Amino acid sequence: MFSQTVEYALRAMATLASHPDNQFCPAPRIAEVAQIPASYLSKVLKHLVDAGLLRGQRGPGGGFMLRRPASEISIWDVVEAVDPIRRIKTCPLDLGAHKTNLCPLHRKLDNVLADMEKAFKEATLSEMMNQPGYPQPLCDFVNSTPAPAVEGRTPLA
Amino acid sequence: MFSQTVEYALRAMATLASHPDNQFCPAPRIAEVAQIPASYLSKVLKHLVDAGLLRGQRGPGGGFMLRRPASEISIWDVVEAVDPIRRIKTCPLDLGAHKTNLCPLHRKLDNVLADMEKAFKEATLSEMMNQPGYPQPLCDFVNSTPAPAVEGRTPLA
Repeated sequence: MFSQTVEYALRAMATLASHPDNQFCPAPRIAEVAQIPASYLSKVLKHLVDAGLLRGQRGPGGGFMLRRPASEISIWDVVEAVDPIRRIKTCPLDLGAHKTNLCPLHRKLDNVLADMEKAFKEATLSEMMNQPGYPQPLCDFVNSTPAPAVEGRTPLA
Repeated sequence: MFSQTVEYALRAMATLASHPDNQFCPAPRIAEVAQIPASYLSKVLKHLVDAGLLRGQRGPGGGFMLRRPASEISIWDVVEAVDPIRRIKTCPLDLGAHKTNLCPLHRKLDNVLADMEKAFKEATLSEMMNQPGYPQPLCDFVNSTPAPAVEGRTPLA
């Protein structure tokens, strides 16, 4: 139901939420921790940068970091950036009588999408990272030693 | 979020729920009413027959009909037949610590899927067809004159 792109974007964001504040995380490190193929990751990261969720910096020592605290980023922000939930606002069949009054079938589908949107808007990335009694996302990897940072950065976005 | 296949399957089922009881509805009529390309429709109908939701009969005068009353078919039955909701039961990254205890991120995603499953299980096809104050699904078409039936039938399923 959720696309691979959504899954990868959430993993990439979780990786960066686990990374030390104000330090860029190199793309290869994100790929390693989040287990995302490099070519797929670069597309996902571009969407997240374009949506204003990430800051990117080219060059040695560059990489990606969250643009705002994880407590101010919702699951919905991430989903919306890479594979938006398309609510059903008008009749998919363009039937005259349904334009401003969806039939019960399409209303039911849209209600389910509305509930999903609400649940995702209420869930912040930081809540996903820290819940007592539950393992941290990607914890097998984020606690392993990252590749050493190198100086010399060029802004990406 | 919902696939084109789900949308088409629900439209096909709504068409058959509007068709007179115990009469086969020819596939071209379903395609016309539900606005589904013929080749796509045949694949969708096969899934619905295989799932035991439809009875099909070949030959002139044949077609498709619901196998049980619309009041006993849920939206979930239809979705499950053509594009099942895949709940998240185990860690998509196969992380050791998460196997029996999903991280909050994947738990949140699965909770949203569980809510969707519940909403679809509680909604019957007949409820989608008859709600005061709302237009009937496909009503611009189901009330138009169908193609005349022809005698001579061969069981399909």
